Amino acid sequence: MSEDIIQKSNVATPRPTKEGQGRGCVDSYPFYVEPFHVDMTGRMFLGILGNHLLNAAGNHSQRRGWGIGALNETHHTWVLSRLSIELEEMPRQYEHGSIETWVESVIKLFTNRNFAILREDGTAYGYARSIWAMIDMETRRPCDLLNLYDGDILNYVVSEDEKPCPIAGHGRFRFRDPQLVRTIDTHYSDVDINGHINSIKYIEHILDLFPIERFRDQRLQRFEIAYKTESYLGDQLSFYMQEIDENEMDVEVRKNDSEVVCQAKVRFN
Amino acid sequence: MSEDIIQKSNVATPRPTKEGQGRGCVDSYPFYVEPFHVDMTGRMFLGILGNHLLNAAGNHSQRRGWGIGALNETHHTWVLSRLSIELEEMPRQYEHGSIETWVESVIKLFTNRNFAILREDGTAYGYARSIWAMIDMETRRPCDLLNLYDGDILNYVVSEDEKPCPIAGHGRFRFRDPQLVRTIDTHYSDVDINGHINSIKYIEHILDLFPIERFRDQRLQRFEIAYKTESYLGDQLSFYMQEIDENEMDVEVRKNDSEVVCQAKVRFN
Repeated sequence: MSEDIIQKSNVATPRPTKEGQGRGCVDSYPFYVEPFHVDMTGRMFLGILGNHLLNAAGNHSQRRGWGIGALNETHHTWVLSRLSIELEEMPRQYEHGSIETWVESVIKLFTNRNFAILREDGTAYGYARSIWAMIDMETRRPCDLLNLYDGDILNYVVSEDEKPCPIAGHGRFRFRDPQLVRTIDTHYSDVDINGHINSIKYIEHILDLFPIERFRDQRLQRFEIAYKTESYLGDQLSFYMQEIDENEMDVEVRKNDSEVVCQAKVRFN
Repeated sequence: MSEDIIQKSNVATPRPTKEGQGRGCVDSYPFYVEPFHVDMTGRMFLGILGNHLLNAAGNHSQRRGWGIGALNETHHTWVLSRLSIELEEMPRQYEHGSIETWVESVIKLFTNRNFAILREDGTAYGYARSIWAMIDMETRRPCDLLNLYDGDILNYVVSEDEKPCPIAGHGRFRFRDPQLVRTIDTHYSDVDINGHINSIKYIEHILDLFPIERFRDQRLQRFEIAYKTESYLGDQLSFYMQEIDENEMDVEVRKNDSEVVCQAKVRFN
Protein backbone atom coordinates (compact mmCIF):
# COMPACT_ATOMS: atom_id res chain seq x y z
CA MET A 1 0.00 0.00 0.00
CA SER A 2 1.54 3.29 -1.05
CA GLU A 3 2.33 6.23 1.13
CA ASP A 4 0.03 8.38 -1.01
CA ILE A 5 -2.97 6.37 0.06
CA ILE A 6 -1.88 6.57 3.65
CA GLN A 7 -1.41 10.31 3.54
CA LYS A 8 -4.98 10.81 2.34
CA SER A 9 -6.22 9.47 5.62
CA ASN A 10 -5.06 12.65 7.29
CA VAL A 11 -7.34 14.82 5.15
CA ALA A 12 -10.68 14.76 6.93
CA THR A 13 -12.08 13.84 10.33
CA PRO A 14 -15.59 12.39 10.22
CA ARG A 15 -17.69 13.22 13.25
CA PRO A 16 -19.24 10.54 15.41
CA THR A 17 -22.89 10.06 14.54
CA LYS A 18 -24.30 7.69 17.14
CA GLU A 19 -24.48 7.29 20.88
CA GLY A 20 -21.60 5.83 22.81
CA GLN A 21 -19.00 8.11 21.32
CA GLY A 22 -16.80 10.65 23.02
CA ARG A 23 -14.68 10.32 26.14
CA GLY A 24 -16.36 6.99 26.94
CA CYS A 25 -14.45 5.56 23.99
CA VAL A 26 -11.05 6.36 25.49
CA ASP A 27 -9.67 3.29 27.24
CA SER A 28 -6.83 3.27 29.73
CA TYR A 29 -4.35 0.40 30.20
CA PRO A 30 -1.87 0.31 33.06
CA PHE A 31 1.78 -0.54 32.57
CA TYR A 32 4.72 -1.13 34.87
CA VAL A 33 8.36 -0.71 33.89
CA GLU A 34 9.99 -4.08 34.57
CA PRO A 35 13.74 -4.42 35.27
CA PHE A 36 14.46 -6.35 32.06
CA HIS A 37 12.56 -3.81 30.01
CA VAL A 38 14.95 -0.91 30.58
CA ASP A 39 18.07 0.08 28.72
CA MET A 40 21.43 0.90 30.25
CA THR A 41 20.18 4.37 31.24
CA GLY A 42 17.29 2.83 33.21
CA ARG A 43 14.70 4.03 30.68
CA MET A 44 12.16 1.72 29.04
CA PHE A 45 13.18 0.37 25.64
CA LEU A 46 11.09 1.96 22.89
CA GLY A 47 10.23 -1.50 21.55
CA ILE A 48 8.67 -2.39 24.90
CA LEU A 49 6.62 0.81 24.84
CA GLY A 50 5.60 0.00 21.26
CA ASN A 51 4.43 -3.42 22.44
CA HIS A 52 2.34 -1.80 25.17
CA LEU A 53 0.78 0.56 22.60
CA LEU A 54 -0.13 -2.32 20.29
CA ASN A 55 -1.61 -4.29 23.19
CA ALA A 56 -3.67 -1.27 24.23
CA ALA A 57 -4.89 -0.91 20.63
CA GLY A 58 -5.77 -4.60 20.45
CA ASN A 59 -7.67 -4.54 23.73
CA HIS A 60 -9.53 -1.36 22.80
CA SER A 61 -10.65 -2.91 19.50
CA GLN A 62 -11.56 -6.19 21.09
CA ARG A 63 -13.79 -4.58 23.71
CA ARG A 64 -15.79 -3.06 20.85
CA GLY A 65 -16.14 -6.19 18.75
CA TRP A 66 -13.35 -5.16 16.38
CA GLY A 67 -10.65 -7.43 17.79
CA ILE A 68 -8.49 -9.76 15.72
CA GLY A 69 -10.46 -12.77 17.00
CA ALA A 70 -13.81 -11.50 15.77
CA LEU A 71 -12.32 -10.21 12.51
CA ASN A 72 -10.61 -13.49 11.69
CA GLU A 73 -14.02 -15.12 11.47
CA THR A 74 -14.79 -12.92 8.48
CA HIS A 75 -11.22 -13.23 7.18
CA HIS A 76 -10.28 -9.68 8.03
CA THR A 77 -7.36 -8.42 10.06
CA TRP A 78 -5.82 -5.14 11.16
CA VAL A 79 -2.51 -4.10 9.65
CA LEU A 80 -0.37 -1.40 11.24
CA SER A 81 0.70 1.10 8.62
CA ARG A 82 2.25 3.98 10.59
CA LEU A 83 3.39 4.56 14.15
CA SER A 84 4.84 7.83 15.46
CA ILE A 85 5.85 8.22 19.09
CA GLU A 86 7.01 11.47 20.67
CA LEU A 87 8.17 11.64 24.25
CA GLU A 88 9.15 14.35 26.67
CA GLU A 89 10.57 11.67 28.92
CA MET A 90 10.78 7.89 28.69
CA PRO A 91 9.28 5.92 31.61
CA ARG A 92 11.92 4.66 34.04
CA GLN A 93 12.47 1.34 35.79
CA TYR A 94 9.82 0.52 38.43
CA GLU A 95 7.52 3.39 37.38
CA HIS A 96 3.82 2.76 36.92
CA GLY A 97 1.94 4.48 34.16
CA SER A 98 -0.97 4.06 31.81
CA ILE A 99 -1.73 4.24 28.14
CA GLU A 100 -4.90 5.90 26.93
CA THR A 101 -6.00 5.05 23.43
CA TRP A 102 -8.80 6.15 21.16
CA VAL A 103 -9.75 6.33 17.48
CA GLU A 104 -9.47 9.89 16.24
CA SER A 105 -10.93 9.37 12.80
CA VAL A 106 -11.91 6.78 10.24
CA ILE A 107 -11.36 7.30 6.56
CA LYS A 108 -12.66 4.64 4.23
CA LEU A 109 -9.54 2.44 4.26
CA PHE A 110 -7.81 3.62 7.41
CA THR A 111 -8.27 4.51 11.05
CA ASN A 112 -6.19 7.05 12.89
CA ARG A 113 -5.63 5.78 16.42
CA ASN A 114 -3.95 7.95 19.04
CA PHE A 115 -2.30 7.25 22.36
CA ALA A 116 -1.40 9.25 25.48
CA ILE A 117 1.39 7.74 27.59
CA LEU A 118 0.73 8.94 31.11
CA ARG A 119 2.54 9.03 34.43
CA GLU A 120 0.84 7.90 37.60
CA ASP A 121 -0.11 11.54 38.34
CA GLY A 122 -1.83 11.86 34.96
CA THR A 123 0.80 14.07 33.31
CA ALA A 124 2.10 12.90 29.97
CA TYR A 125 5.41 11.19 29.21
CA GLY A 126 4.33 11.67 25.60
CA TYR A 127 1.91 10.76 22.86
CA ALA A 128 1.69 8.52 19.84
CA ARG A 129 -0.24 8.39 16.58
CA SER A 130 -0.89 5.36 14.44
CA ILE A 131 -2.64 4.43 11.20
CA TRP A 132 -4.25 1.03 10.69
CA ALA A 133 -5.79 -0.59 7.65
CA MET A 134 -8.28 -3.44 7.68
CA ILE A 135 -7.36 -6.01 5.08
CA ASP A 136 -9.06 -9.03 3.62
CA MET A 137 -6.82 -11.93 4.62
CA GLU A 138 -7.36 -13.73 1.33
CA THR A 139 -6.88 -10.92 -1.17
CA ARG A 140 -4.52 -8.93 1.17
CA ARG A 141 -6.39 -5.83 -0.10
CA PRO A 142 -7.60 -3.05 2.23
CA CYS A 143 -11.35 -3.00 2.99
CA ASP A 144 -13.74 -0.10 3.26
CA LEU A 145 -14.12 0.23 7.02
CA LEU A 146 -17.39 2.12 6.69
CA ASN A 147 -19.00 -0.85 4.92
CA LEU A 148 -18.06 -3.32 7.64
CA TYR A 149 -20.65 -4.01 10.33
CA ASP A 150 -22.85 -1.13 9.08
CA GLY A 151 -20.23 1.51 9.82
CA ASP A 152 -20.24 0.55 13.50
CA ILE A 153 -16.66 1.81 13.86
CA LEU A 154 -17.86 5.42 13.64
CA ASN A 155 -19.48 4.94 17.04
CA TYR A 156 -16.06 4.88 18.60
CA VAL A 157 -14.54 7.98 17.11
CA VAL A 158 -13.32 10.64 19.55
CA SER A 159 -12.59 13.79 17.59
CA GLU A 160 -9.51 15.94 17.99
CA ASP A 161 -11.64 18.64 19.63
CA GLU A 162 -12.76 16.23 22.31
CA LYS A 163 -9.37 14.64 22.92
CA PRO A 164 -6.30 16.30 21.45
CA CYS A 165 -3.06 14.51 20.63
CA PRO A 166 -0.50 17.32 20.77
CA ILE A 167 2.24 15.88 18.55
CA ALA A 168 2.87 16.36 14.84
CA GLY A 169 1.29 13.97 12.34
CA HIS A 170 3.26 11.36 10.42
CA GLY A 171 5.94 12.85 8.22
CA ARG A 172 7.03 12.02 4.71
CA PHE A 173 10.20 10.20 3.81
CA ARG A 174 12.43 11.34 0.98
CA PHE A 175 15.41 9.07 0.56
CA ARG A 176 18.06 10.43 -1.76
CA ASP A 177 21.34 8.65 -1.27
CA PRO A 178 21.05 6.61 1.93
CA GLN A 179 24.10 4.61 2.97
CA LEU A 180 24.02 0.91 3.73
CA VAL A 181 25.01 0.58 7.39
CA ARG A 182 24.11 -3.01 8.34
CA THR A 183 22.74 -6.23 6.91
CA ILE A 184 21.29 -8.92 9.17
CA ASP A 185 19.78 -12.36 8.78
CA THR A 186 16.41 -12.97 10.41
CA HIS A 187 15.90 -15.76 12.90
CA TYR A 188 13.33 -17.59 15.01
CA SER A 189 12.89 -14.80 17.57
CA ASP A 190 12.19 -12.16 14.90
CA VAL A 191 9.02 -13.83 13.66
CA ASP A 192 5.41 -13.52 14.86
CA ILE A 193 2.52 -15.97 14.73
CA ASN A 194 1.79 -14.99 11.13
CA GLY A 195 5.31 -15.88 10.02
CA HIS A 196 6.12 -12.18 9.48
CA ILE A 197 8.99 -10.30 11.00
CA ASN A 198 7.38 -8.80 14.12
CA SER A 199 6.62 -5.03 13.91
CA ILE A 200 8.38 -4.45 17.23
CA LYS A 201 11.55 -6.25 16.15
CA TYR A 202 12.07 -3.71 13.35
CA ILE A 203 12.09 -0.99 16.00
CA GLU A 204 14.75 -2.87 17.99
CA HIS A 205 16.91 -3.53 14.94
CA ILE A 206 16.67 0.11 13.84
CA LEU A 207 17.65 1.50 17.25
CA ASP A 208 20.52 -1.01 17.39
CA LEU A 209 22.09 0.92 14.49
CA PHE A 210 22.91 3.81 16.83
CA PRO A 211 25.91 4.05 19.13
CA ILE A 212 25.21 3.87 22.84
CA GLU A 213 26.25 7.52 23.30
CA ARG A 214 23.04 8.59 21.56
CA PHE A 215 21.02 6.99 24.34
CA ARG A 216 23.40 7.80 27.16
CA ASP A 217 24.17 11.44 26.38
CA GLN A 218 20.99 12.31 24.51
CA ARG A 219 17.40 11.14 24.62
CA LEU A 220 15.20 9.57 22.00
CA GLN A 221 12.64 12.30 21.36
CA ARG A 222 10.62 11.09 18.41
CA PHE A 223 10.43 7.85 16.46
CA GLU A 224 8.35 7.30 13.34
CA ILE A 225 7.94 4.15 11.34
CA ALA A 226 6.05 3.42 8.11
CA TYR A 227 5.43 -0.26 7.41
CA LYS A 228 5.42 -0.86 3.65
CA THR A 229 5.39 -4.58 3.11
CA GLU A 230 5.94 -7.76 5.13
CA SER A 231 9.21 -9.60 5.42
CA TYR A 232 9.53 -13.25 6.41
CA LEU A 233 11.79 -15.60 8.31
CA GLY A 234 14.98 -16.10 6.35
CA ASP A 235 14.77 -12.74 4.58
CA GLN A 236 17.92 -10.72 4.84
CA LEU A 237 17.29 -7.17 6.04
CA SER A 238 19.52 -4.29 4.94
CA PHE A 239 19.48 -0.98 6.78
CA TYR A 240 20.17 2.23 4.86
CA MET A 241 20.67 5.46 6.74
CA GLN A 242 20.41 9.09 5.72
CA GLU A 243 21.28 11.99 8.00
CA ILE A 244 18.73 14.79 8.08
CA ASP A 245 20.71 16.82 10.62
CA GLU A 246 23.05 15.91 13.46
CA ASN A 247 20.17 14.69 15.63
CA GLU A 248 17.79 13.26 13.07
CA MET A 249 18.29 10.22 10.89
CA ASP A 250 16.04 8.43 8.41
CA VAL A 251 16.42 4.68 8.03
CA GLU A 252 15.14 2.55 5.18
CA VAL A 253 14.93 -1.22 5.63
CA ARG A 254 15.02 -3.35 2.49
CA LYS A 255 14.59 -7.10 2.28
CA ASN A 256 16.98 -9.18 0.21
CA ASP A 257 18.40 -5.87 -0.95
CA SER A 258 15.44 -4.96 -3.13
CA GLU A 259 11.94 -4.24 -1.82
CA VAL A 260 11.44 -1.59 0.87
CA VAL A 261 9.99 -3.17 4.03
CA CYS A 262 9.77 -0.11 6.25
CA GLN A 263 11.08 3.40 6.74
CA ALA A 264 11.81 5.12 10.01
CA LYS A 265 12.75 8.52 11.35
CA VAL A 266 14.74 8.72 14.57
CA ARG A 267 15.20 12.03 16.37
CA PHE A 268 17.37 12.58 19.42
CA ASN A 269 17.15 15.80 21.45
CA MET B 1 32.59 -18.52 39.88
CA SER B 2 33.32 -22.09 38.92
CA GLU B 3 30.80 -24.78 38.20
CA ASP B 4 32.27 -26.87 41.00
CA ILE B 5 31.19 -24.32 43.56
CA ILE B 6 27.77 -24.17 42.02
CA GLN B 7 27.35 -27.94 42.02
CA LYS B 8 28.02 -28.08 45.74
CA SER B 9 24.86 -26.15 46.37
CA ASN B 10 22.89 -29.23 45.37
CA VAL B 11 24.42 -31.36 48.08
CA ALA B 12 22.26 -30.65 51.10
CA THR B 13 18.92 -29.07 51.90
CA PRO B 14 18.82 -27.17 55.17
CA ARG B 15 15.49 -27.32 56.95
CA PRO B 16 13.60 -24.18 57.89
CA THR B 17 14.20 -23.31 61.51
CA LYS B 18 11.83 -20.48 62.32
CA GLU B 19 8.19 -19.57 62.00
CA GLY B 20 6.83 -18.24 58.76
CA GLN B 21 8.21 -21.00 56.62
CA GLY B 22 6.34 -23.57 54.55
CA ARG B 23 3.59 -23.06 51.99
CA GLY B 24 3.14 -19.47 53.12
CA CYS B 25 6.45 -18.73 51.48
CA VAL B 26 5.27 -19.78 48.01
CA ASP B 27 4.15 -16.74 46.03
CA SER B 28 2.05 -16.82 42.89
CA TYR B 29 2.30 -14.30 40.03
CA PRO B 30 -0.19 -14.22 37.17
CA PHE B 31 0.86 -13.96 33.52
CA TYR B 32 -0.97 -13.53 30.26
CA VAL B 33 0.37 -14.60 26.87
CA GLU B 34 0.39 -11.44 24.74
CA PRO B 35 0.20 -11.58 20.92
CA PHE B 36 3.71 -10.21 20.39
CA HIS B 37 5.14 -12.68 22.88
CA VAL B 38 4.43 -15.80 20.84
CA ASP B 39 6.47 -17.48 18.14
CA MET B 40 5.24 -18.58 14.74
CA THR B 41 3.62 -21.66 16.29
CA GLY B 42 1.56 -19.48 18.66
CA ARG B 43 3.57 -20.58 21.71
CA MET B 44 5.21 -18.17 24.11
CA PHE B 45 8.88 -17.44 23.41
CA LEU B 46 11.08 -19.04 26.05
CA GLY B 47 12.82 -15.70 26.64
CA ILE B 48 9.48 -14.15 27.59
CA LEU B 49 8.81 -16.99 30.02
CA GLY B 50 12.33 -16.51 31.41
CA ASN B 51 11.54 -12.85 31.96
CA HIS B 52 8.36 -13.77 33.86
CA LEU B 53 10.36 -16.17 36.04
CA LEU B 54 12.94 -13.52 36.87
CA ASN B 55 10.21 -11.01 37.69
CA ALA B 56 8.50 -13.53 39.96
CA ALA B 57 11.83 -14.17 41.69
CA GLY B 58 12.45 -10.45 42.10
CA ASN B 59 9.00 -9.82 43.55
CA HIS B 60 9.22 -12.78 45.91
CA SER B 61 12.57 -11.54 47.26
CA GLN B 62 11.38 -7.98 47.52
CA ARG B 63 8.30 -8.89 49.57
CA ARG B 64 10.64 -10.48 52.11
CA GLY B 65 13.12 -7.62 52.34
CA TRP B 66 15.64 -9.35 50.07
CA GLY B 67 14.91 -7.33 46.92
CA ILE B 68 17.55 -5.64 44.81
CA GLY B 69 16.51 -2.23 46.15
CA ALA B 70 17.11 -3.16 49.80
CA LEU B 71 20.30 -5.06 48.98
CA ASN B 72 21.80 -2.21 47.00
CA GLU B 73 21.84 -0.14 50.18
CA THR B 74 24.37 -2.55 51.64
CA HIS B 75 26.11 -2.94 48.24
CA HIS B 76 24.87 -6.45 47.66
CA THR B 77 23.04 -7.84 44.67
CA TRP B 78 21.65 -11.14 43.41
CA VAL B 79 23.39 -12.84 40.49
CA LEU B 80 21.68 -15.58 38.52
CA SER B 81 24.01 -18.53 38.12
CA ARG B 82 21.84 -21.34 36.71
CA LEU B 83 18.38 -21.59 35.17
CA SER B 84 16.79 -24.86 33.98
CA ILE B 85 13.29 -24.91 32.54
CA GLU B 86 11.40 -28.06 31.59
CA LEU B 87 7.98 -27.93 29.98
CA GLU B 88 5.33 -30.42 29.04
CA GLU B 89 3.69 -27.71 27.00
CA MET B 90 4.49 -24.08 26.31
CA PRO B 91 1.73 -21.54 27.13
CA ARG B 92 -0.15 -20.38 24.04
CA GLN B 93 -1.34 -16.98 22.84
CA TYR B 94 -4.12 -15.43 24.97
CA GLU B 95 -3.77 -18.04 27.73
CA HIS B 96 -3.68 -16.94 31.37
CA GLY B 97 -1.43 -18.73 33.81
CA SER B 98 0.59 -18.17 36.94
CA ILE B 99 4.09 -18.71 38.22
CA GLU B 100 4.64 -20.04 41.71
CA THR B 101 8.08 -19.50 43.17
CA TRP B 102 9.80 -20.48 46.37
CA VAL B 103 13.28 -20.99 47.83
CA GLU B 104 14.01 -24.68 48.20
CA SER B 105 17.30 -24.41 50.03
CA VAL B 106 20.08 -22.06 51.02
CA ILE B 107 23.67 -23.16 51.07
CA LYS B 108 26.19 -20.65 52.32
CA LEU B 109 26.86 -18.92 48.99
CA PHE B 110 23.81 -19.92 46.99
CA THR B 111 20.06 -20.25 47.06
CA ASN B 112 18.11 -22.82 45.07
CA ARG B 113 14.90 -21.18 43.87
CA ASN B 114 12.21 -23.21 42.13
CA PHE B 115 9.24 -22.33 39.97
CA ALA B 116 6.00 -24.02 38.90
CA ILE B 117 4.48 -22.68 35.68
CA LEU B 118 0.76 -23.31 35.99
CA ARG B 119 -2.30 -23.23 33.76
CA GLU B 120 -5.47 -21.45 34.86
CA ASP B 121 -6.83 -24.79 36.16
CA GLY B 122 -3.75 -25.28 38.35
CA THR B 123 -2.16 -28.07 36.29
CA ALA B 124 1.47 -27.53 35.31
CA TYR B 125 2.86 -26.44 31.97
CA GLY B 126 6.19 -27.23 33.56
CA TYR B 127 8.74 -26.34 36.22
CA ALA B 128 12.02 -24.50 36.55
CA ARG B 129 15.00 -24.52 38.88
CA SER B 130 17.47 -21.71 39.43
CA ILE B 131 20.57 -20.98 41.48
CA TRP B 132 21.40 -17.49 42.71
CA ALA B 133 24.43 -16.07 44.44
CA MET B 134 24.52 -12.92 46.51
CA ILE B 135 27.57 -10.85 45.65
CA ASP B 136 29.23 -7.85 47.16
CA MET B 137 28.97 -5.18 44.46
CA GLU B 138 32.40 -3.76 45.25
CA THR B 139 34.48 -6.92 45.46
CA ARG B 140 32.18 -8.91 43.07
CA ARG B 141 32.74 -11.86 45.46
CA PRO B 142 29.91 -14.10 46.68
CA CYS B 143 28.69 -13.50 50.25
CA ASP B 144 27.72 -15.97 52.92
CA LEU B 145 23.92 -15.74 52.83
CA LEU B 146 23.60 -17.18 56.33
CA ASN B 147 25.57 -14.28 57.78
CA LEU B 148 23.37 -11.64 56.17
CA TYR B 149 20.51 -10.23 58.24
CA ASP B 150 21.07 -12.88 60.95
CA GLY B 151 20.26 -15.77 58.63
CA ASP B 152 16.78 -14.33 57.98
CA ILE B 153 16.69 -16.03 54.58
CA LEU B 154 16.23 -19.43 56.25
CA ASN B 155 12.76 -18.29 57.31
CA TYR B 156 11.65 -18.51 53.71
CA VAL B 157 12.83 -21.98 52.82
CA VAL B 158 10.19 -24.43 51.62
CA SER B 159 11.74 -27.90 51.58
CA GLU B 160 11.39 -30.40 48.79
CA ASP B 161 9.13 -32.54 50.99
CA GLU B 162 6.72 -29.66 51.41
CA LYS B 163 6.76 -28.48 47.80
CA PRO B 164 8.33 -30.75 45.19
CA CYS B 165 9.78 -29.56 41.89
CA PRO B 166 9.53 -32.68 39.71
CA ILE B 167 12.26 -31.96 37.15
CA ALA B 168 15.90 -32.98 37.10
CA GLY B 169 18.52 -30.76 38.69
CA HIS B 170 21.02 -28.74 36.70
CA GLY B 171 23.29 -30.88 34.55
CA ARG B 172 26.98 -30.69 33.87
CA PHE B 173 28.52 -29.48 30.65
CA ARG B 174 31.39 -31.31 29.00
CA PHE B 175 32.51 -29.56 25.85
CA ARG B 176 34.91 -31.59 23.74
CA ASP B 177 35.06 -30.24 20.23
CA PRO B 178 32.18 -27.79 19.80
CA GLN B 179 31.82 -26.14 16.38
CA LEU B 180 31.60 -22.39 15.88
CA VAL B 181 28.17 -21.75 14.36
CA ARG B 182 27.67 -17.99 14.65
CA THR B 183 29.39 -14.79 15.78
CA ILE B 184 27.40 -11.65 16.54
CA ASP B 185 28.10 -8.12 17.63
CA THR B 186 26.19 -6.80 20.64
CA HIS B 187 24.08 -3.69 20.43
CA TYR B 188 21.98 -1.23 22.41
CA SER B 189 18.99 -3.57 22.85
CA ASP B 190 21.16 -6.39 24.27
CA VAL B 191 22.23 -4.44 27.32
CA ASP B 192 20.59 -4.07 30.73
CA ILE B 193 20.73 -1.26 33.28
CA ASN B 194 24.05 -2.56 34.63
CA GLY B 195 25.67 -2.36 31.21
CA HIS B 196 25.77 -6.17 30.96
CA ILE B 197 24.32 -8.24 28.17
CA ASN B 198 20.85 -9.08 29.51
CA SER B 199 20.40 -12.69 30.79
CA ILE B 200 17.27 -13.08 28.69
CA LYS B 201 18.99 -11.93 25.49
CA TYR B 202 21.42 -14.86 25.69
CA ILE B 203 18.41 -17.20 25.65
CA GLU B 204 17.06 -15.47 22.53
CA HIS B 205 20.41 -15.54 20.73
CA ILE B 206 20.93 -19.23 21.60
CA LEU B 207 17.49 -20.29 20.34
CA ASP B 208 18.08 -18.23 17.18
CA LEU B 209 20.82 -20.73 16.29
CA PHE B 210 18.20 -23.40 15.53
CA PRO B 211 16.26 -23.77 12.28
CA ILE B 212 12.55 -23.02 12.43
CA GLU B 213 11.68 -26.70 11.83
CA ARG B 214 12.85 -27.50 15.35
CA PHE B 215 10.12 -25.26 16.75
CA ARG B 216 7.50 -26.06 14.12
CA ASP B 217 7.82 -29.84 13.96
CA GLN B 218 9.15 -30.46 17.45
CA ARG B 219 8.81 -28.76 20.80
CA LEU B 220 11.35 -27.24 23.13
CA GLN B 221 11.26 -29.62 26.08
CA ARG B 222 14.10 -28.51 28.31
CA PHE B 223 16.47 -25.56 28.36
CA GLU B 224 19.37 -25.10 30.77
CA ILE B 225 21.74 -22.21 31.04
CA ALA B 226 24.78 -21.65 33.25
CA TYR B 227 25.96 -18.05 33.49
CA LYS B 228 29.74 -17.94 33.93
CA THR B 229 30.80 -14.34 33.55
CA GLU B 230 29.36 -11.06 32.33
CA SER B 231 29.74 -9.68 28.83
CA TYR B 232 29.35 -6.03 27.91
CA LEU B 233 28.09 -3.81 25.12
CA GLY B 234 30.46 -4.05 22.20
CA ASP B 235 31.69 -7.54 23.08
CA GLN B 236 31.51 -9.95 20.21
CA LEU B 237 29.74 -13.18 21.13
CA SER B 238 30.66 -16.47 19.46
CA PHE B 239 28.36 -19.47 19.68
CA TYR B 240 29.85 -22.97 19.68
CA MET B 241 27.58 -25.97 19.34
CA GLN B 242 28.03 -29.63 20.22
CA GLU B 243 25.46 -32.30 19.41
CA ILE B 244 24.67 -34.69 22.28
CA ASP B 245 22.12 -36.63 20.23
CA GLU B 246 19.75 -35.72 17.43
CA ASN B 247 17.44 -33.80 19.81
CA GLU B 248 19.89 -32.38 22.30
CA MET B 249 22.54 -29.76 21.72
CA ASP B 250 24.94 -27.99 24.03
CA VAL B 251 25.92 -24.41 23.24
CA GLU B 252 28.87 -22.50 24.62
CA VAL B 253 28.99 -18.71 24.28
CA ARG B 254 32.38 -17.05 24.34
CA LYS B 255 33.12 -13.33 24.32
CA ASN B 256 35.73 -11.92 21.98
CA ASP B 257 36.56 -15.53 21.19
CA SER B 258 38.20 -16.27 24.51
CA GLU B 259 36.39 -16.28 27.85
CA VAL B 260 33.28 -18.47 28.31
CA VAL B 261 30.25 -16.29 29.10
CA CYS B 262 27.58 -18.97 29.40
CA GLN B 263 26.75 -22.55 28.49
CA ALA B 264 23.36 -23.92 27.54
CA LYS B 265 21.68 -27.23 26.87
CA VAL B 266 18.71 -27.28 24.50
CA ARG B 267 16.53 -30.37 24.23
CA PHE B 268 13.70 -30.82 21.75
CA ASN B 269 11.22 -33.68 22.12
